Amino acid sequence: MITVRVFRDGVADEGTIEPSQIAECLAKDDAFVWFDASAPTADDIAALGQAFNLHPLTLEDIGHRRQRPRVELFEHYAFITLRPLTLNEKLVEHELHVVVGSRFMGTLRYGPEPYPVDEVVKRWERQPELLKTDPGAFAVYVLFDEIVDGYLTIVEQLEDKADDLEDLVFADDPSIDGSQIQERIFLVKREVVKLRRFASPMRQGLDLLQEQPGFVQATLLPYFRDVTEHAIRVFELADNIRDVLTSLLELRVAQVANHLNVVMKKLTAWAGILLVPTLIAGIYGMNFRNMPELGWRFGYAGALIVMGGSAFALYVMFKKKDWL
Amino acid sequence: MITVRVFRDGVADEGTIEPSQIAECLAKDDAFVWFDASAPTADDIAALGQAFNLHPLTLEDIGHRRQRPRVELFEHYAFITLRPLTLNEKLVEHELHVVVGSRFMGTLRYGPEPYPVDEVVKRWERQPELLKTDPGAFAVYVLFDEIVDGYLTIVEQLEDKADDLEDLVFADDPSIDGSQIQERIFLVKREVVKLRRFASPMRQGLDLLQEQPGFVQATLLPYFRDVTEHAIRVFELADNIRDVLTSLLELRVAQVANHLNVVMKKLTAWAGILLVPTLIAGIYGMNFRNMPELGWRFGYAGALIVMGGSAFALYVMFKKKDWL
Amino acid sequence: MITVRVFRDGVADEGTIEPSQIAECLAKDDAFVWFDASAPTADDIAALGQAFNLHPLTLEDIGHRRQRPRVELFEHYAFITLRPLTLNEKLVEHELHVVVGSRFMGTLRYGPEPYPVDEVVKRWERQPELLKTDPGAFAVYVLFDEIVDGYLTIVEQLEDKADDLEDLVFADDPSIDGSQIQERIFLVKREVVKLRRFASPMRQGLDLLQEQPGFVQATLLPYFRDVTEHAIRVFELADNIRDVLTSLLELRVAQVANHLNVVMKKLTAWAGILLVPTLIAGIYGMNFRNMPELGWRFGYAGALIVMGGSAFALYVMFKKKDWL
Amino acid sequence: MITVRVFRDGVADEGTIEPSQIAECLAKDDAFVWFDASAPTADDIAALGQAFNLHPLTLEDIGHRRQRPRVELFEHYAFITLRPLTLNEKLVEHELHVVVGSRFMGTLRYGPEPYPVDEVVKRWERQPELLKTDPGAFAVYVLFDEIVDGYLTIVEQLEDKADDLEDLVFADDPSIDGSQIQERIFLVKREVVKLRRFASPMRQGLDLLQEQPGFVQATLLPYFRDVTEHAIRVFELADNIRDVLTSLLELRVAQVANHLNVVMKKLTAWAGILLVPTLIAGIYGMNFRNMPELGWRFGYAGALIVMGGSAFALYVMFKKKDWL
Amino acid sequence: MITVRVFRDGVADEGTIEPSQIAECLAKDDAFVWFDASAPTADDIAALGQAFNLHPLTLEDIGHRRQRPRVELFEHYAFITLRPLTLNEKLVEHELHVVVGSRFMGTLRYGPEPYPVDEVVKRWERQPELLKTDPGAFAVYVLFDEIVDGYLTIVEQLEDKADDLEDLVFADDPSIDGSQIQERIFLVKREVVKLRRFASPMRQGLDLLQEQPGFVQATLLPYFRDVTEHAIRVFELADNIRDVLTSLLELRVAQVANHLNVVMKKLTAWAGILLVPTLIAGIYGMNFRNMPELGWRFGYAGALIVMGGSAFALYVMFKKKDWL
Repeated sequence: MITVRVFRDGVADEGTIEPSQIAECLAKDDAFVWFDASAPTADDIAALGQAFNLHPLTLEDIGHRRQRPRVELFEHYAFITLRPLTLNEKLVEHELHVVVGSRFMGTLRYGPEPYPVDEVVKRWERQPELLKTDPGAFAVYVLFDEIVDGYLTIVEQLEDKADDLEDLVFADDPSIDGSQIQERIFLVKREVVKLRRFASPMRQGLDLLQEQPGFVQATLLPYFRDVTEHAIRVFELADNIRDVLTSLLELRVAQVANHLNVVMKKLTAWAGILLVPTLIAGIYGMNFRNMPELGWRFGYAGALIVMGGSAFALYVMFKKKDWL
Repeated sequence: MITVRVFRDGVADEGTIEPSQIAECLAKDDAFVWFDASAPTADDIAALGQAFNLHPLTLEDIGHRRQRPRVELFEHYAFITLRPLTLNEKLVEHELHVVVGSRFMGTLRYGPEPYPVDEVVKRWERQPELLKTDPGAFAVYVLFDEIVDGYLTIVEQLEDKADDLEDLVFADDPSIDGSQIQERIFLVKREVVKLRRFASPMRQGLDLLQEQPGFVQATLLPYFRDVTEHAIRVFELADNIRDVLTSLLELRVAQVANHLNVVMKKLTAWAGILLVPTLIAGIYGMNFRNMPELGWRFGYAGALIVMGGSAFALYVMFKKKDWL
Repeated sequence: MITVRVFRDGVADEGTIEPSQIAECLAKDDAFVWFDASAPTADDIAALGQAFNLHPLTLEDIGHRRQRPRVELFEHYAFITLRPLTLNEKLVEHELHVVVGSRFMGTLRYGPEPYPVDEVVKRWERQPELLKTDPGAFAVYVLFDEIVDGYLTIVEQLEDKADDLEDLVFADDPSIDGSQIQERIFLVKREVVKLRRFASPMRQGLDLLQEQPGFVQATLLPYFRDVTEHAIRVFELADNIRDVLTSLLELRVAQVANHLNVVMKKLTAWAGILLVPTLIAGIYGMNFRNMPELGWRFGYAGALIVMGGSAFALYVMFKKKDWL
Repeated sequence: MITVRVFRDGVADEGTIEPSQIAECLAKDDAFVWFDASAPTADDIAALGQAFNLHPLTLEDIGHRRQRPRVELFEHYAFITLRPLTLNEKLVEHELHVVVGSRFMGTLRYGPEPYPVDEVVKRWERQPELLKTDPGAFAVYVLFDEIVDGYLTIVEQLEDKADDLEDLVFADDPSIDGSQIQERIFLVKREVVKLRRFASPMRQGLDLLQEQPGFVQATLLPYFRDVTEHAIRVFELADNIRDVLTSLLELRVAQVANHLNVVMKKLTAWAGILLVPTLIAGIYGMNFRNMPELGWRFGYAGALIVMGGSAFALYVMFKKKDWL
Repeated sequence: MITVRVFRDGVADEGTIEPSQIAECLAKDDAFVWFDASAPTADDIAALGQAFNLHPLTLEDIGHRRQRPRVELFEHYAFITLRPLTLNEKLVEHELHVVVGSRFMGTLRYGPEPYPVDEVVKRWERQPELLKTDPGAFAVYVLFDEIVDGYLTIVEQLEDKADDLEDLVFADDPSIDGSQIQERIFLVKREVVKLRRFASPMRQGLDLLQEQPGFVQATLLPYFRDVTEHAIRVFELADNIRDVLTSLLELRVAQVANHLNVVMKKLTAWAGILLVPTLIAGIYGMNFRNMPELGWRFGYAGALIVMGGSAFALYVMFKKKDWL
């Protein structure tokens, strides 16, 4: 579904225009044209290409999903791939292809749930002076900023999950299945690594955009630096969580090894405690004719006492050695 | 088997020419000569050397197989080693040596199954305008692009395999032999590492070609940047899969350690459950004359009950402790 | 709580001024204004922004906690985030936001226990000549220096803790719960990693400040180099402790594996020592009519001797093999 | 043993000259002097120093063995340390010190088996035109090339060994002692790491030589680039083998952990299968007077059937659970 | 204890002078003043500061111990921290603070056993021509060279220790306590890491000194390059030993896992061998009235044979499976 809107002097025109009217609009100096296609079809992409005169390579690349975030510079525009994440009950991975020039922007929002841009548009409208002087750069800055802020929310949530896992590992509660903790560590780690992989190329992308001559004007430079800084923060937080989770898994493996030791000590101790009286019972179960103890009055009681005593002695010894 | 074809103004001449006619062809400004040898013999290589006036070092290096992908610049040409992978029922590793100048290209395709270039030629013919203005660079770009696209297909397949392995590890199905999973992880990881090793030098190679003065003209620059971007994508995907597989193997090792704990707890529990009644039976198997219980009417039944009761009590205890 | 103080020629004026008087003060050439807010409210931040004419982005970023240490340069000031640590019975993590220009500094000290700056002010007063010639740079240098010195104190303490853990691991005292050591290693390591993460961006921050044209004058350069050197020292010490702790955990895991071997050898040995006499007792407990040994005079004694002898022989054998 | 030979216009003079005649020779423009000492004595080194007017530091460094490969530039010569490996039935490590100027080269070949240079000389004679125009650079190029080719041969052999080890690990043959495989992996890895350590500084060395102004002339540049490329190939192959061996050891450790699980399951299963009938036998071995089953006609047969039946049932159960 | 000596034209004056005379000495062009304080007091440091007009920051930094090796440049001198190691029966760690200008050097030698400088002075006297032309740089070069040579001696010794440990691991002698080997590996690794940490900043330090304009003259450049090269050699050797030790510990852990497998197989095998005859004995110990075998003449002998036979059969089977 294509929507094309025009902004003049930082303020949105009422209503939308047709893609075919874009060229006419761009001919005038004061307009900023935003072409948005959610769940775009091949026709939508062709319309976009024609409207902004895109390079055939861009159109070809737009056709592929699951790309890594990146910025590719062309003569009069930049082609940007973004991978926003939103958290709406559950984590949703989006893919967004953007072409942006000084005075136009095209956004293609893929997937079953296209990335919502309402918030982005609202922020454009909140700072019309910036949208007026440097529309393309400002529009793309807001988009990056929203996405990186989304990453920050998610990375902080993953940090909480990592903290919970740390508590769980430290509790070392035997009633929790060990594999389960390890599997949860693995899953959180994978999310963190994905976030890191999405945030890391953001920085290079932002640097590239700033190098595009005449694209980002001086007023916007602090904004680009700021969002870059936030992307680095996401990256470093993710890095840090990853390291903690790796250490945590190591700790968990060490704990499991300790548990095995404890179990084996118990096995050894109980085997000893049971086998010694069993041996004594075996001895008095022998059928030798000449076994004086068998005739003793308190022979049986004595045997029971010896059996109990030896078991008790072993029990005390193992307790002392902390095997039980 | 040598095939020499001539392209004029981006369009292929009918038929082929002899290697000896190449020099004559190159003397004219508008021709692009393509020398192709599949499963080349020493004679073929010598013919190639003579046709394009190659440096003796190139001819010597051409003689060696299993080289890493690379680009080496000489005065009037570049010597390129490529390692395409194709997936045709099973994964086939090819080796391709290329010499390319502004207006000629030589391809040597080795191996029992030489890398197929039909698709490459078709793509040349589809964009005659590019083959006309900058034939060498365009021809080599298409070759790189085809190979990197092949890598992308394979890396995505390996990603699927890694996902399957992840499911398998998470299922933690005891009926699957543990070693088998680990071995499969190892094998996929090895493929991924190979792909990474092949894709990584592609980037430097493409950079080198762009630095060769006058070789790549402005029109083709976006194309070279695009294929470079795809090579990076292969590299990063491979990197990512490798990390996931490494974590997966760690998780698997942790699972195995957990399983051992479970087995040992079971062993300990069952040993206790069986050894306690055995001890009791042993006691009443002793031959002391004075053992009052032996004469009791319900002595035997009582003993059985004590035996069963103690076993049951232990069973319940171990169940509660989650050892069974 | 806002406190605004004015320094003239490196010497503090008596009393404080109102935020609204700052602009007037800065208009005169000789004054250095210090705006300090401990546990600042939104109003305090707004006052700060107005007093020093801060960029809206700075004010927005000031609103977020748990940022990584960094320096962001604006036209007439630098925005600095710092994460001091103090050790006052227990480790306290602070957060400090600083804006600093050539002749003014604003400090926002967050958290339940704001970072104490008394020591910083004392050091300003001790070197009035530096505070006079280059007030902003000197003021911020002292702040960095105090924080890095705090890190040094803490990193040296963590080094002592790591040494203690090393002694504990080497003692290999079986009465200490193995998991406990591993958990303590993990906790110290986490502290070390945090310190490293805080100290590392200090260096880039200090470099950035020195690059701000005209901010740091020649007299102060050795001071900035010195504090940078100290930050590197913290970073390297932390790195080193981390490596030692990693090796220590590996050693610990190896020890646990060894212990398991020792326990299993003991189990095997004792099982053998007890089961062999049990078998012999079982043999003479059989009810065959024709068992000549049963009638022998010293049959019972002989059986006991054989049982004891075999147990003793096994004991000696296992002792020799070092299994017991 | 010193041998001094003179090459004029790329062709070797008949016979040898005395070290004392070198200065005279070098005075003439067309000569290239090669001073070779195999298993050199202190006198030989002094003679070399005098002949080519070497810096005292070079002479001091020449006195030490087991240095890492490197190139050190002096005013009129380069001092090169090389560590060739040859494979002659078994792997031999050599050490070679070389001083090379535009028109002279000195080689000191140490060790019980000095590195053979016959092949190097033969290659000089094969390209007299290069030895004529740029004798020092060409002579040293051939030396590097021969050594790097030696590395390539060896690295390919180590690759074969790694492949064999991989097969061995995958066979997972229980009759092979596990430790042995791990030790073999360790040993091959050590060789690979050594090769990597020798090949890696080759590259920097070659770069340094090319930077020595006027030493390497344009004609030779492709040759230096070529040998650099080969050194990189050795390095990357070694790196790759090392990674495979590391993964292989991990796989092996995981296999061993799996085996332990298998053994423990078997132990548990067999213990159960044997202990249950033992308990039953114990029960009917009790001496209670009132045990009706003892008088039954088929009591004994019934007991045997119950024992066998329970053992068989357990066996089937464990088989199903894949513990046996 | 302060000693101040003066060198004129590279030759030492007889006797020593007072610190107060230093200024006078430096006023003359030909003198090189060496101020040495072993186990310096606060007064000694103050005297040094006054004699050479040191920056207050230098004096403050001199007050701290356990610093990392480094070079800090000031206007007319460099402040150098060094951490020599000497091996005199046991390893001694020293700390040395040096300030060096073109014509003066101050050395502060700390610790219970200050670093001995006799050898350094002897080497100064051996090359008076260098001490004459560039006294400060030459003096400090000799100091670095002596220290790095000390490192080389120690790193080679650690290499020998690592070789011994390798032999020990390969011997895999069961009579050696496993933990002990691992602990020894850990200790050697720690020494190696320390050496690496001391040697690594040497290089940057030496580079910094060469960048100090006018400090190191052309004659001395090869000497500085040479000692840099030696520092790199120490660093790389240490790196290499560290890698070997890491692999060795991995191998050791793998061995321990193998041993456990062996022990468990033995336990399983022996348990089977003993429990089967025990079961048979239990069967014939049952008290059924109707057990025909009990009345057989050779019943007992037969039972013994069956018991021995089954044990022997199991023994052979386990031997074949290599479990015993």
